[in-house]
Amino acid sequence: MSSKPNTSPWLEQVKWNADGLVAAIAQDAKSGRVLMMAWMNSESLQLTISSGDAVYWSRSRNKLWRKGESSGHVQKIHSIALDCDGDALLMQVEQIGGIACHTGRESCFYRQLKGDNWQSMEAVLKDPATMYKSVDQ
Amino acid sequence: MSSKPNTSPWLEQVKWNADGLVAAIAQDAKSGRVLMMAWMNSESLQLTISSGDAVYWSRSRNKLWRKGESSGHVQKIHSIALDCDGDALLMQVEQIGGIACHTGRESCFYRQLKGDNWQSMEAVLKDPATMYKSVDQ
Repeated sequence: MSSKPNTSPWLEQVKWNADGLVAAIAQDAKSGRVLMMAWMNSESLQLTISSGDAVYWSRSRNKLWRKGESSGHVQKIHSIALDCDGDALLMQVEQIGGIACHTGRESCFYRQLKGDNWQSMEAVLKDPATMYKSVDQ
Repeated sequence: MSSKPNTSPWLEQVKWNADGLVAAIAQDAKSGRVLMMAWMNSESLQLTISSGDAVYWSRSRNKLWRKGESSGHVQKIHSIALDCDGDALLMQVEQIGGIACHTGRESCFYRQLKGDNWQSMEAVLKDPATMYKSVDQ
């Protein structure tokens, strides 16, 4: 699937967790908005880099998650950074369609703590029911 | 330690992982720079909210990690958001001292993938050897 074997030095510097995953944060390269956090395994990280589009590992579906495959809300990678202890990635992305969240919002972080409640602070831009051609987030 | 019991509805909406932790991303409220990602347990999240300063759970030291306790690089919380599936927090913070990383850099995400290498893209602002009064990050 990829031209980069698992033994690449850059891949070895990633500190995978017990499930072979690393946290991946997507940030809008233009606005700076943090869009989402998901997970990648070695294959999805390599695919992300080789394709230029974010590919995550879906823990709920236990398979590769090509972000935007059915919704069209692809994330184009501008750059990718690794943190100091190697267990988190930060990607600067162009969010196609301006919607990262499966709820139809720009960002998955749309609920803010106000007093004792998480309050939705962000409008739904698109009805999720119309967003997907098949099961995808 | 906290006035909020573990049964608070807002706490119940957080999806703790098998270790009782949730990922917490700190973003500079002014610049939008993503500073770090670490982990919180229920107690550290409640302390973060009650104190207004970020308190993480150190997985390596297996104890509460009051960010900046010895370095002075405290993170003042402006707001805190929960993502759509409840397993990640995003905090807007004021980073005291302008340094979040234990390497003396502004952000922990200072290494960018360039070709086959993670290249440091950010200057060390302060020598880590002079940063700590005791063991802290």
